[in-house]
Amino acid sequence: MTDGGGSAGRFREVWEELAAIGGGDPGGYRRFAWTPVDLALRGWFQEQAALRGMTYERDRDGNQWAWWGTPAAGAVVTGSHLDSVPGGGAFDGPLGVVSAFLAVDELRARGVVPARPIAVVNFADEEGARFGVACVGSRLLTGVLAPDDARALRDGDGVTLAEAMRAAGADPDAIGRDEEVLGRIGVFVELHIEQGRGLVGLDAPIGVASAIWPHGRWRCTFHGEANHAGTTRLADRHDPMPPFASTVLAARAAAERWGALATFGKVLVDPNGTNAIPARVDAWLDGRAPDAATVDGMVDQIAEAARAAGAEHGVRVEVVAESVTPVVEFGDELRDRIAKALGGVPALPTGAGHDAGILSASVPSAMIFVRNPTGVSHSPAEHAGTDDCVAGVAALTTVLEDLACR
Amino acid sequence: MTDGGGSAGRFREVWEELAAIGGGDPGGYRRFAWTPVDLALRGWFQEQAALRGMTYERDRDGNQWAWWGTPAAGAVVTGSHLDSVPGGGAFDGPLGVVSAFLAVDELRARGVVPARPIAVVNFADEEGARFGVACVGSRLLTGVLAPDDARALRDGDGVTLAEAMRAAGADPDAIGRDEEVLGRIGVFVELHIEQGRGLVGLDAPIGVASAIWPHGRWRCTFHGEANHAGTTRLADRHDPMPPFASTVLAARAAAERWGALATFGKVLVDPNGTNAIPARVDAWLDGRAPDAATVDGMVDQIAEAARAAGAEHGVRVEVVAESVTPVVEFGDELRDRIAKALGGVPALPTGAGHDAGILSASVPSAMIFVRNPTGVSHSPAEHAGTDDCVAGVAALTTVLEDLACR
Repeated sequence: MTDGGGSAGRFREVWEELAAIGGGDPGGYRRFAWTPVDLALRGWFQEQAALRGMTYERDRDGNQWAWWGTPAAGAVVTGSHLDSVPGGGAFDGPLGVVSAFLAVDELRARGVVPARPIAVVNFADEEGARFGVACVGSRLLTGVLAPDDARALRDGDGVTLAEAMRAAGADPDAIGRDEEVLGRIGVFVELHIEQGRGLVGLDAPIGVASAIWPHGRWRCTFHGEANHAGTTRLADRHDPMPPFASTVLAARAAAERWGALATFGKVLVDPNGTNAIPARVDAWLDGRAPDAATVDGMVDQIAEAARAAGAEHGVRVEVVAESVTPVVEFGDELRDRIAKALGGVPALPTGAGHDAGILSASVPSAMIFVRNPTGVSHSPAEHAGTDDCVAGVAALTTVLEDLACR
Repeated sequence: MTDGGGSAGRFREVWEELAAIGGGDPGGYRRFAWTPVDLALRGWFQEQAALRGMTYERDRDGNQWAWWGTPAAGAVVTGSHLDSVPGGGAFDGPLGVVSAFLAVDELRARGVVPARPIAVVNFADEEGARFGVACVGSRLLTGVLAPDDARALRDGDGVTLAEAMRAAGADPDAIGRDEEVLGRIGVFVELHIEQGRGLVGLDAPIGVASAIWPHGRWRCTFHGEANHAGTTRLADRHDPMPPFASTVLAARAAAERWGALATFGKVLVDPNGTNAIPARVDAWLDGRAPDAATVDGMVDQIAEAARAAGAEHGVRVEVVAESVTPVVEFGDELRDRIAKALGGVPALPTGAGHDAGILSASVPSAMIFVRNPTGVSHSPAEHAGTDDCVAGVAALTTVLEDLACR
């Protein structure tokens, strides 16, 4: 890309059209899978494919594909996802999809003729914000998630994934590992905004992923006894709130001790009345660390603290793993090839799960990160500078040319 | 009442009909003001009035009245409320209304001719579960709550009290202090299930109220910064959850230190995603104590702990009083007269607010408590034995005869 101003203009044009979908709320995006706003995002993807004369397909698992060249084995695939967490930012996911389409434009502008087909992908329901399981589209495609388990997932209103897909015009009976689609992917490269400040520290706009930390979600349930807040003596209470509070503090302390991350981001209180001692508190522990032994050790310690605090209040505590994802080490060969093609950009790990992490167990996969000045992510304040985004498009263009033409 | 078995049968008959309305959920009742289930309860009240040939009225503030005799000044009024908290029990409120109707039956069976009119009342929206302010019906009637403030109250779905009343066929423009209705109340006696184990300790089925503890609700808001749970270093976080947790533990410790009660029963987390550090936690502190100075001292101490914990995490904390109710001392004269008529039953304070507490500032008011074996309240497990309920009806009958005939 020789024309920085023109690249920035093209980036902004595509970016702003996408950013407008479901945007405008100062509280951030809420682009949940299979909702009307997701369908609008999917419509945008299909339109981008059509604008470029790319062949559009939706696979059996709800992932969207735009093909430059005939769909066939050995394809160079790039893309990311378009859904968001509640209160999400504009970049997590969409930056990878927009950059993919713009890289295709740039390759064509250069007159590049790929030796292998190139595809842009939008993976369904990466965040798991609606049904509680992340990377549903890539997990189904690779067979990591069983179709029956997926169909039975329920959102906060009790709607199953099967019902949501059907209401959105997709066929939940068809989901599951898809050999044909999977067999076409020669290599997958996902571009993503960095979700920390690693590149800021390295003073680099672009990097590649070395590994994804193992991580998981544990549901902690504190079973108390509902009672009147104004009349029940402290000694007579089985209040689940203080043991939950002790567990939050224990988690923070354990994360510091183990050099790991532990977060309680979701809490549900039953019945959640101002003058009622709760019957029950459900809280979700998100735990991550550089290796699985550290995650396990930390979570065991937090669970132990939760049970001890519960026992002091006559509150029974259950800790159940809802999803645990092992460490992902991206292949050295592909990672080194990409880093070299980009002039020796740094490699760094991340604590966030990604579709590239799921795919890496089945096909050669890699990630390119774009610098995030504040490190803020999963927030309306998430941001990357336009210059860095344009550098990301240029890097992806270089990588696709390297992978698809040589 | 000479026929214990017959009294129990009559009690059960009326009780079970009422208990069926909105019942059957093992999670308890959810009888919120002006909802369809509340309208069904109101229909039941009107039907009970009609069955007894009592004159039915709904006052301008939505409270229901059933009159034995012509509505006039100096009336002896009894009753309670029919709404519930979320996950509520069957007794809190309904026991006072059912006992009132059965006491009227018993007086008539005895051939008593009251010298003053007797009225049974169902006060609207006592729990405040839907719109956040308790005792709305009695507060409006006595002018403690301004009509404009009441009309603007909103429920969790954003529906105003004015809209809810209108949808239920009531006129929100008519609400406010009602001299005519208030002027008729010579004395108000509310029978209620005890919400603690004071009577159990005294081995007494029946007692009278001495005072209602001062109490209030404080909204504590912890303003953090949303971020990705998997990628944000502990040092970079402004996580509102740990300072909230510290505040819960500080509240419990402060309540023990001050000989008071402090409860966090309601918590809202934004955005409440499993892998998102929250942007904000809102939590409601319910505080009660024998006197206002103790409540204030305790709450100040908790607020100070909240701010200190917030400062450690770069989290701004706001503590705002949403409602504060001063101590209610029920008048000695009426209380002693009732206790004497009942053969010297004990007097005991309560930490729970009641319509009788609101009315006591305007008219002579008293409360009769019925023993609660477990002390559990605001819970599906709330319970009083039928023998004690029948004893409550007998006591109320005696008190009404004493007040209306002598």
